[in-house]
Amino acid sequence: MIPIMSKSEAAAHVESARIRQGRTWAELAEHLGTPLVWTTAALLGQHPMSTEQARSVCDLLELGDDVAEGLALQPGRGTPAEVMADPTIYRFTEALSVYGPALKALIHEEFGDGIMSAINFQVDIARRPDPDGDRVVITLDGKFLDYRW
Amino acid sequence: MIPIMSKSEAAAHVESARIRQGRTWAELAEHLGTPLVWTTAALLGQHPMSTEQARSVCDLLELGDDVAEGLALQPGRGTPAEVMADPTIYRFTEALSVYGPALKALIHEEFGDGIMSAINFQVDIARRPDPDGDRVVITLDGKFLDYRW
Amino acid sequence: MIPIMSKSEAAAHVESARIRQGRTWAELAEHLGTPLVWTTAALLGQHPMSTEQARSVCDLLELGDDVAEGLALQPGRGTPAEVMADPTIYRFTEALSVYGPALKALIHEEFGDGIMSAINFQVDIARRPDPDGDRVVITLDGKFLDYRW
Amino acid sequence: MIPIMSKSEAAAHVESARIRQGRTWAELAEHLGTPLVWTTAALLGQHPMSTEQARSVCDLLELGDDVAEGLALQPGRGTPAEVMADPTIYRFTEALSVYGPALKALIHEEFGDGIMSAINFQVDIARRPDPDGDRVVITLDGKFLDYRW
Amino acid sequence: MIPIMSKSEAAAHVESARIRQGRTWAELAEHLGTPLVWTTAALLGQHPMSTEQARSVCDLLELGDDVAEGLALQPGRGTPAEVMADPTIYRFTEALSVYGPALKALIHEEFGDGIMSAINFQVDIARRPDPDGDRVVITLDGKFLDYRW
Amino acid sequence: MIPIMSKSEAAAHVESARIRQGRTWAELAEHLGTPLVWTTAALLGQHPMSTEQARSVCDLLELGDDVAEGLALQPGRGTPAEVMADPTIYRFTEALSVYGPALKALIHEEFGDGIMSAINFQVDIARRPDPDGDRVVITLDGKFLDYRW
Amino acid sequence: MIPIMSKSEAAAHVESARIRQGRTWAELAEHLGTPLVWTTAALLGQHPMSTEQARSVCDLLELGDDVAEGLALQPGRGTPAEVMADPTIYRFTEALSVYGPALKALIHEEFGDGIMSAINFQVDIARRPDPDGDRVVITLDGKFLDYRW
Amino acid sequence: MIPIMSKSEAAAHVESARIRQGRTWAELAEHLGTPLVWTTAALLGQHPMSTEQARSVCDLLELGDDVAEGLALQPGRGTPAEVMADPTIYRFTEALSVYGPALKALIHEEFGDGIMSAINFQVDIARRPDPDGDRVVITLDGKFLDYRW
Amino acid sequence: MIPIMSKSEAAAHVESARIRQGRTWAELAEHLGTPLVWTTAALLGQHPMSTEQARSVCDLLELGDDVAEGLALQPGRGTPAEVMADPTIYRFTEALSVYGPALKALIHEEFGDGIMSAINFQVDIARRPDPDGDRVVITLDGKFLDYRW
Amino acid sequence: MIPIMSKSEAAAHVESARIRQGRTWAELAEHLGTPLVWTTAALLGQHPMSTEQARSVCDLLELGDDVAEGLALQPGRGTPAEVMADPTIYRFTEALSVYGPALKALIHEEFGDGIMSAINFQVDIARRPDPDGDRVVITLDGKFLDYRW
Repeated sequence: MIPIMSKSEAAAHVESARIRQGRTWAELAEHLGTPLVWTTAALLGQHPMSTEQARSVCDLLELGDDVAEGLALQPGRGTPAEVMADPTIYRFTEALSVYGPALKALIHEEFGDGIMSAINFQVDIARRPDPDGDRVVITLDGKFLDYRW
Repeated sequence: MIPIMSKSEAAAHVESARIRQGRTWAELAEHLGTPLVWTTAALLGQHPMSTEQARSVCDLLELGDDVAEGLALQPGRGTPAEVMADPTIYRFTEALSVYGPALKALIHEEFGDGIMSAINFQVDIARRPDPDGDRVVITLDGKFLDYRW
Repeated sequence: MIPIMSKSEAAAHVESARIRQGRTWAELAEHLGTPLVWTTAALLGQHPMSTEQARSVCDLLELGDDVAEGLALQPGRGTPAEVMADPTIYRFTEALSVYGPALKALIHEEFGDGIMSAINFQVDIARRPDPDGDRVVITLDGKFLDYRW
Repeated sequence: MIPIMSKSEAAAHVESARIRQGRTWAELAEHLGTPLVWTTAALLGQHPMSTEQARSVCDLLELGDDVAEGLALQPGRGTPAEVMADPTIYRFTEALSVYGPALKALIHEEFGDGIMSAINFQVDIARRPDPDGDRVVITLDGKFLDYRW
Repeated sequence: MIPIMSKSEAAAHVESARIRQGRTWAELAEHLGTPLVWTTAALLGQHPMSTEQARSVCDLLELGDDVAEGLALQPGRGTPAEVMADPTIYRFTEALSVYGPALKALIHEEFGDGIMSAINFQVDIARRPDPDGDRVVITLDGKFLDYRW
Repeated sequence: MIPIMSKSEAAAHVESARIRQGRTWAELAEHLGTPLVWTTAALLGQHPMSTEQARSVCDLLELGDDVAEGLALQPGRGTPAEVMADPTIYRFTEALSVYGPALKALIHEEFGDGIMSAINFQVDIARRPDPDGDRVVITLDGKFLDYRW
Repeated sequence: MIPIMSKSEAAAHVESARIRQGRTWAELAEHLGTPLVWTTAALLGQHPMSTEQARSVCDLLELGDDVAEGLALQPGRGTPAEVMADPTIYRFTEALSVYGPALKALIHEEFGDGIMSAINFQVDIARRPDPDGDRVVITLDGKFLDYRW
Repeated sequence: MIPIMSKSEAAAHVESARIRQGRTWAELAEHLGTPLVWTTAALLGQHPMSTEQARSVCDLLELGDDVAEGLALQPGRGTPAEVMADPTIYRFTEALSVYGPALKALIHEEFGDGIMSAINFQVDIARRPDPDGDRVVITLDGKFLDYRW
Repeated sequence: MIPIMSKSEAAAHVESARIRQGRTWAELAEHLGTPLVWTTAALLGQHPMSTEQARSVCDLLELGDDVAEGLALQPGRGTPAEVMADPTIYRFTEALSVYGPALKALIHEEFGDGIMSAINFQVDIARRPDPDGDRVVITLDGKFLDYRW
Repeated sequence: MIPIMSKSEAAAHVESARIRQGRTWAELAEHLGTPLVWTTAALLGQHPMSTEQARSVCDLLELGDDVAEGLALQPGRGTPAEVMADPTIYRFTEALSVYGPALKALIHEEFGDGIMSAINFQVDIARRPDPDGDRVVITLDGKFLDYRW
């Protein structure tokens, strides 16, 4: 029996096909009708896709059923430490290291004892033109969950 | 000679006085006329304050010159790993672990090879009412910097 | 100005007074009318208490207002790695290391893609008599949260 | 001579066949007549199966003798740190970090100096309907072992 | 209120008094009528003593009630990594690193799937004369616990 | 030229053949006339075997000269941390963490400043019947080496 | 579909061809008309090359389109810890460990609160003849970025 | 006897006095007639000062003989990891992680097998005006040492 | 009762007195009639001294009985990682990282399967004049111990 | 194009051929006319060989040009932590942990502020007969380098 293609192997096939065909992540998101960051994260292996979504993106990229099968798997989420050290990703970690305790204090002040959910959660990214140089604007939007016994 | 009060000792004095007087971080930010997250981070020891800002917040909280002196110091920025493990802060780390590679890919697609600055950078936090439970909305806004030799 | 007593200092005072007076955690929980595990965790510094709760437990244990003030603080939650290595605590970590992936698979099978909340969450502990030796029964009860964009 | 298939290779074959055939973990447990969490953990490689159990599950999933041979092996138990960082699994680790010292204190209070065994131990998982959202209920049930010289 | 003396502070007082009075660990064990390794470990802070045992050893060493109170506390067990690196202790770690997998294999072969308990467990140390140089003989004696659901 | 089979590859071949033929470690030790724990450790790759020993065990298990060649190699000794975390092995580590400092103190008291050798060293394992459940008895027997300049 | 060659595989092909043909990094930089350190870093996989640059260097080294495709990829930047431990690289790390806090203090004194960019940044290396032995001179040249909200 | 003030305590006294008196590192370097980066590093505790240098800087800053005594001590060099994580210092670490292997390759190409000494070594920092924003220019200048047996 | 001065406190007193009196380690070794490296290591807290040795060195340095008591204690041997990172010490670690496997291979070739003892072991250091710059010559001299069951 | 054989692959081929032919490291060193420890380290992958040396040793061992090509490569030096944990290598690390600070103190006393070079450095190993058991004598001989700005 042929083993199911792993999530990360499927993601690698998507990435190769996407680059060869010159398609952007935005085009893939538009094709699927799903949000941009969600789509990119899912195709990088961080979310399961429905069978239909997996099938649809593989049709577009001319990839086989084995890739679609892999995209539909439930992932083990997370990113290895050496990838997190990439400078583009590290800036987020650094910002958290500087502003994390302040965000905790302000969540407690405004909402009470609890957290911003990372599950009932969405992320968006946008370009904001600025004469001093355009800016990356990232919005984290998560449900407040209070400690509730 | 009496050593200068360290940044973290000054921050502890601010925190004690703030709680005893029942003042919010928002009131301190309003008093200073500075952004909410910046003010909270600065008073937790992550940014230097100008002498006037430090003096003003100490007057409000009835703290001495030694505390103001500490608040004006240049900080060593960052947060220890055990504090980052607090559940309210950890959710940000987890979100980065899930969405970090996607954000990297989308920054490169939209802006080219580079990063979102964590220095020319601002953070805002807001409450967004929602019938399913109010939401925490955090906006990261940083200048795009391209790799430029 | 006298700095506010830290959460962990207040917890140490509670522990000393509790032992000296020969009171059990169960008695403190009954006195407060709060669940057993929650009460113990809160008095060990992992949850904020309301001012009334903090006042009430300090009255019982003949502790001052400074301790009550500390108990009411918002905590930085979590336990250092060296404490987690204690044999009584380590058994939980080991059980997770053996059964964690199975629990993940069964949550996904029964509920779909998501998690058991550790915030909307409660824990109970009980003794179950058994002729082969009594058993510790611990119940973890958390709301299912699905990944929802 | 053909080397014996490793425990983890056998587990991967079970997982692929299970998904292809659309069978749930619950069906496999029912087929074997063994508890749900035990069965899932064993098929993920954390417990040895008897030769009969291994043969039976391989018949159901149309897998060969080499897979059954692997399932019957004595495992090296445990889960790598990067898998434990998956959000669904991490919530258990976080709960332990918050409630571990309280559970230790209550075991000592109720049972005396000792531990809850992670060997003479069973785990169950159930869904508890709740109008605010259904709940995951996990029961850890282990024999108390007192420090006995 | 005076906080209870911690386990490690009490152990430090015992050690100082023991050295000043020139008493051996063997004498303390004999005085208490308890096993040698257990007594040494307990007085180094790894086991709780009964109130009578704690009182008795403090009488012998002319130490106060506060020390006895500390010796009777329930400990957080374990030894920091830097202490484990001491050459005399490290040899045990090295021996485990070389023979640990063999001992695991032989326990499974002789007893079945399970462990040697470290709780229902005792240790003894003895000198065995040998013309090539006397030998340290350490006996680990723990109950076999089989994985039992 | 065909590279020499590595120590760990040779060990894997021994393990596969041993299980397929249904032989115990005890039988292999008896066949070789070598101690039980030494034989098991050596065949798991922690000791070099003489050419005759390697040849003899390969004859018994119907393995080729390439495996014998690997068994005769000088090993790099030690066990990876993830294997040491297996519950059956971890109990030894935990016992050391609890009793290591006591053993160090007693070695110094009985023998003077020095160590128990882990090189001039042997280990034995035995079953001791006990009405409360049979016990694993492990004996560590090493030459005392005093710090000698 | 053939997967795209990874950045590190492409770098390995460049390295092999470069050595076989006896070409220096300086020759490759001259061929491309790009700075020496940038070129070397890019060909070791730390920067994306334009399609033209990648094509040009592959023509020179007689490498195929698949290598050029890999060289043009956006990299995940950074170097594993074990490579950073090489003595030639470690000296830079050691120098930073000795002089890092001084450089931070002097940047703040001369420029104010901010950093030297590692993105708008260039590095040069040169040989400076010296009668006591020639010297390696490395120049780090980065734009000052002030903390700006 | 009064213990000698440690290197880091002496550095803290220098820092306090320097800030209170409003003196720059550049002024201290000029007063001593020593290079800027060397002086700053030495006064932060990374180099021993001669008795005359230590005395001279303490006279200027009105500090006592105990501080001078500490400044003259031989240091244990290096900076803790949490300080190295400060954003201003981290940029150097990141640059090394990106360019370290390229610098190693170019040192070997230009000089042969060896290193740039971090002992026979000097560092300079300068401001270079630039219409796009002034630049920090850091020069590392170390003797080449070839591997020589 | 006054606790016994710890080994490291006693070492700090010796160091302070030694510097104040301008005495070298070599003078202390000569005074005691003990080898240079052994004496230095012992006075830095890595070996116990006899009561006579401890008394003698404290007489010379005009230190009290409490210091002598500390010097006579059995040490916990070893050096923290941050001290090992000092450049003067790190060079030894680096040399081991480069030559360690070669030394292992040569010990096995010349002596058979075993180790160089670090207990029956001595170290010497000497200056060897050389026209190209004097050399540090360190001799490690340890008894060979063969793996002997 | 065939990629160049890596340094470690070449080393593995040398090791296999050396064992098959029954040659010692000493014979290889004699054949090359190079020092024993240098030769062993180089053939284990820690030093580049000249093309002639690489060719010569491959002729002796009947290995091809691809192996010689690998032996001539510039290495990334160092040894992974798991190899350093081998008991024969670990004894050196332990000795450094005990004597490292003493050697640092004595280098500073005898030579001034500086280090023993690990680059202008040689190592020798010898057997010294001794009635109590032969001894391993290792000599580290490195040029003193003073901190020189």
